[in-house]
Amino acid sequence: MTKMPYTPTRRQLLAMIGQVAGAGAMYQAMTSLGFAAESGYTAEPGLQGPRQGRRVLILGAGIAGMAAAYEMRRAGYEVKILEYQNRHGGRCLTMRGGDRYTEMGGHEITCDFEGDGFFNPGPWRLPVHHRAVFDYCRKLGVPLQPFIIKNNRAFLHSSRAFGGKPQRIGHVEKDMRGHVAELLAKSLHQGGLDEAVSIEDRERLLEGLRDWGVLDRRDRYRASDDVGGVRGWDIHPGGGLMAEKSPSQPIDLSPLLQSGLWDQLFNFNSYTFEAPMFEPVGGMDAITDAFAREVSEVIQFNARVTRIAQGDGGVTVTYADGDQGGMVREEAADWCICTIPLSVLVQLDVDCSDEMRQAIGAVPYASAFKVALEFRRRFWEQDDWIMGGVSYTDLPLVQIAYPNYGFMSDGPAVLQAAYDTATGGRNFTYSWSTMTPQERIDAALAFGRQIHPQYDAEFMSGTSWVWHRVDWSLGCYGQWTDDLRDAHYKTLCEIDNRLVLAGEHCSHIPAWLEGSLLSALDAIKRLDQRENA
Amino acid sequence: MTKMPYTPTRRQLLAMIGQVAGAGAMYQAMTSLGFAAESGYTAEPGLQGPRQGRRVLILGAGIAGMAAAYEMRRAGYEVKILEYQNRHGGRCLTMRGGDRYTEMGGHEITCDFEGDGFFNPGPWRLPVHHRAVFDYCRKLGVPLQPFIIKNNRAFLHSSRAFGGKPQRIGHVEKDMRGHVAELLAKSLHQGGLDEAVSIEDRERLLEGLRDWGVLDRRDRYRASDDVGGVRGWDIHPGGGLMAEKSPSQPIDLSPLLQSGLWDQLFNFNSYTFEAPMFEPVGGMDAITDAFAREVSEVIQFNARVTRIAQGDGGVTVTYADGDQGGMVREEAADWCICTIPLSVLVQLDVDCSDEMRQAIGAVPYASAFKVALEFRRRFWEQDDWIMGGVSYTDLPLVQIAYPNYGFMSDGPAVLQAAYDTATGGRNFTYSWSTMTPQERIDAALAFGRQIHPQYDAEFMSGTSWVWHRVDWSLGCYGQWTDDLRDAHYKTLCEIDNRLVLAGEHCSHIPAWLEGSLLSALDAIKRLDQRENA
Repeated sequence: MTKMPYTPTRRQLLAMIGQVAGAGAMYQAMTSLGFAAESGYTAEPGLQGPRQGRRVLILGAGIAGMAAAYEMRRAGYEVKILEYQNRHGGRCLTMRGGDRYTEMGGHEITCDFEGDGFFNPGPWRLPVHHRAVFDYCRKLGVPLQPFIIKNNRAFLHSSRAFGGKPQRIGHVEKDMRGHVAELLAKSLHQGGLDEAVSIEDRERLLEGLRDWGVLDRRDRYRASDDVGGVRGWDIHPGGGLMAEKSPSQPIDLSPLLQSGLWDQLFNFNSYTFEAPMFEPVGGMDAITDAFAREVSEVIQFNARVTRIAQGDGGVTVTYADGDQGGMVREEAADWCICTIPLSVLVQLDVDCSDEMRQAIGAVPYASAFKVALEFRRRFWEQDDWIMGGVSYTDLPLVQIAYPNYGFMSDGPAVLQAAYDTATGGRNFTYSWSTMTPQERIDAALAFGRQIHPQYDAEFMSGTSWVWHRVDWSLGCYGQWTDDLRDAHYKTLCEIDNRLVLAGEHCSHIPAWLEGSLLSALDAIKRLDQRENA
Repeated sequence: MTKMPYTPTRRQLLAMIGQVAGAGAMYQAMTSLGFAAESGYTAEPGLQGPRQGRRVLILGAGIAGMAAAYEMRRAGYEVKILEYQNRHGGRCLTMRGGDRYTEMGGHEITCDFEGDGFFNPGPWRLPVHHRAVFDYCRKLGVPLQPFIIKNNRAFLHSSRAFGGKPQRIGHVEKDMRGHVAELLAKSLHQGGLDEAVSIEDRERLLEGLRDWGVLDRRDRYRASDDVGGVRGWDIHPGGGLMAEKSPSQPIDLSPLLQSGLWDQLFNFNSYTFEAPMFEPVGGMDAITDAFAREVSEVIQFNARVTRIAQGDGGVTVTYADGDQGGMVREEAADWCICTIPLSVLVQLDVDCSDEMRQAIGAVPYASAFKVALEFRRRFWEQDDWIMGGVSYTDLPLVQIAYPNYGFMSDGPAVLQAAYDTATGGRNFTYSWSTMTPQERIDAALAFGRQIHPQYDAEFMSGTSWVWHRVDWSLGCYGQWTDDLRDAHYKTLCEIDNRLVLAGEHCSHIPAWLEGSLLSALDAIKRLDQRENA
C-alpha cells in the first residue's frame, strides 16, 4: 500500500476500502491460529463421563474442589465433597462488617466495618489472561468490574528519599523515561552505537525518543509546557481568565536513581499485573458463591478428614463429622480428588506412593499477611485525587490498595492498608504474623500515616489476616522453587492409583485462582481418561 | 534511617513505628501546601450574590450554561436559559436505540441499537484531574466507573507492517523498552556516557535497566522465561500436567521502528490520557441530565437567538420562539452569559466591542467524526481477551474503542468503531464528513475488519456523527493556535459591558467538559465581582 495522503478526499478514502480488502482476508486466515491458543484452557473440559455409575469423593470445597465437582457432575459422575470448615470457598473469601474469626494462637479477628466496604484476605484481582476464571464468571453469571492496578496518581514512597514525601507513580515513570531517552539520544549523537543501530534505524529511534521522552530541541528532558502536557502541571490549564498554567518540574536523574522509586515501579511490570485487571462486583467470594450455587447440595461441611486409604477397588476416606459431635465416619468412592493444602495434607494418613508422600512433604507454604482499615471518608480521592490503584512504599506495610468501587461516594470506605507475601527480597511477613491483631492495626496506622497523614483524623476500625495463623491452610500458598519442581511437581500431579491431587499447589500459577482451576480441570480430564482407558 | 533488615523481628518492626513518627509530622505540614493547589478550580465559586434583584440571561443549555445557571441561582440571581434545541446538554450527548437526527445536508442519522449499548458522539471520558467535572458529579449524584484508556491487550495496527496483523499494545511497549534498555546499557558499558552519568548513578542505572527492560545476564533483551513473565506467553503456564509454558518472542528493534507502532503508542503518553480515566455509568448525558435536574425549570427550549443588544442599563436578547410558531420575542436582563459556539455566534447580531467581534470571528472550529457499530456478541472479549480500552491503526478509522461496561455479558454490544479530530498530522475528518451516513458505516466496516475479522459475521447496525453537519455547533470545538490565543483569547473572555462569553472555547482546555465548566465558573465569578464592585 502507498503512503496515506495527508487529507484524502472522499473519493480517495472510499477507494482505500477496496485496496485493503486483500489484507483482511489474509489476516482472517491467520487469526484463527493466533490468539486463541495462548491458554491451555479450553472452554469445555471434554469429559467422556463414566462407563457405569462411578462415585467421586472430593476433599475441600475451595474453588478447585467445587470446579471439579461441577464438571464431574455435568459429565455424569456421582460426586460428594467433604469440607473441613462450615463454609465453602477456601482461601477465596471476603470479610465484611460483623465477621469474626479466631486464628491460631487464640486471638479473635474482628471486622467491624460500618460502611459497605469489604476486604479480601486471599485473592483480590484477576488478570485478563486467566481465562478459566473469566469463563466460569461468564458461565456462572458473576459480574466483573475493572480493578485499577496502575494508577499514575497513586504514590511511590521511600522513607529515605525526598524528605519522606510520596511521589506520583506517573512522575517517576515519565521522568525516568525522559532521562533514559535523553541519555540514549546523547549516545546516538556521539556515534557510540553506530555498530548496533543502522543509520536508518538511528534516525527513527531518535525521532521516537523525542516523543516518548518529551525531549526538547536539543534532545534534553527539561521542564516545559510539552513536559507539563505529559507529566502534569503545578497549575493546571484553566478556563476564562484563571491563572496561567505552569508545568510541573521533573525530578533529576540522580536523586531519582538514589530514591529507589524506579525499582518500586517494577511492581507493575509483570504480565500478571498488566492493565486492565478485574474483580467481581461486591467481593471475591462472588466467584466461589457462584460455584457453590451449582454444587452446594453435594457439600458436607464440618468434615475433618483424617485418613485417605485406597486399594485397587477404590478409596475410603475417614473423617470426623463435626455435625455429629466429631463421630468418626467413612466414605467410600471409586476416585478421590484431594484439594487439601499440602501443609495440612502432610499431617494426614494418606495411602500413596513413597514418591508422592515425599512430594507432599516437600513444598513449603508461603507466608502472607494483610491489614484492612476503614476510614470515615475517601480522603485519598477527595484530597489526593487517587481513584483506585495501589501505592508502594519501602515501609513494612509495603503497599496500600484503594477501593475500585463506590468512587466519589460519601461515607466510610475500606483500604487494604498493608499486604505482602514472602516472595520478594525483603520479608516483613513473619514479623507481622507474630503481632496481635491490635498491634497489626496500630502498625498499619503508624506506617500508613507517613503516606496519608489523614489516617489519624479519619480512622474508624481495622481488621487483618495472617495466613500462617489459619488452621485450615497453615500458610498462604505452595512456594515452589525450580529445584523443588524438578524433583516433585510431576509426581504430585500424577494420578496415584485412585487418588489425584488438585489446587493451586498443583499448578504453575501458585496462589492464583486460575492455578486452582486449571489444576482441577487437568486432574479431572486425566481421571476421566483413566476411567475410560 | 538505617537500611531495613532483611527480615525484621516483631520487636524491630514495632520499634520502627517510633522511628518514622517524626518524618510523618514533617510531611503532614507539607501536604496541605502540596497537591490541593494543582487545579485553579475551587469547590465553591464563592459568589457574593446580587445587591438587589438581578436578572441573568444565559444563552445555551449545555454544561457551561447549566453550571452557570446552577451557581448563579444558588447565589440569589434570577436566571433564565434560552436554548436553541428541544433538549439540554449541548455537545455532551448520548445516542441509544431509537434515536434519530437529521444532519445538515438532509441525511437522517438513525440509531437502531437493539442491546443496551450506547454511543457518545461528543465527550466520552473524564481525566481524574478534571476536578470540576468530578466535583459536580459528586455533588449531583452521578456515579462514575473506570474508563479503561490503556489496555495492554488492545491492538496497535499498521496496514503496512507485520503483514497487516495487529500487535498487542503491551508487546510494542515492552519490546521498545527492552531494546532501549539494551542499547543504553551497551552505551554505559562502552563508557560513552561517563561524562553525563556519575559512576555511582551508572551502576544504579544499569541495575534498574536490567529489571525495567528485562535484560539477560549479558544485558541483552532476548526471549526467555523472564521476558515471558513480562510480555506474555505463547503457551501460558498451566495447571497439573498441562503443556509446558513457552515465552512469547520479542519483536526485533528494526521492524518495530519501521512499523510506526511505537509512535501510535504515544497516543497514551499525555497527562490528559493518564490511567485511570472515568466515565459516568450509562452514558455521558448522565452528567448533563444531572445539571438539568437542577435547572430545568429555567430553561426555555426551541429559542433561536438572533440578536444580543446591550446598553448601560442591561441586555436585550431577541429570539424566534419555536414553541410559538417562530414568533419573534425579546428577553431583557441585567447580565448575559452567552455560551453559543463561536461558529454560530459569529453569524448573529451582537452588540459588543470591535475587538470582541474580531475575536468571535477569529477561531475556527475543529472537524471531528465518530462511527459506532453494534455487533451480535463481544468477540473482542471472547476471542481476543480485550476487555475495554482503545486500539489504534493507521487506517482512516484511526481508533476502535471497546465498551467499559457489561464485561463478559452475552448479547449485542456497541463499539466506537471510528473516531478522529482534526488535530493530528493526518486528517481523515473532512473525507468522512463528506460521506453519507451509510457510506460511513460501510467504511468503518471495511477498515475495521482488517483488525477484527469477526466484523462481517457479527455486524448488526451502525450510526455516526459528523460535527460539521450539526447546525447548532457547526464544528466540534474551538481550534486555538498560540497566535490566535495571543491575539484574541483575553478579549474573548473579558466582560464586555453587560455580556460575558463562556464555554470550552473560552478555556485552555478546548473540547473538554472541564474547559466549559471552568470557563463558566470563572465568568460568573468575575460577573459577580463586577456586580458588587
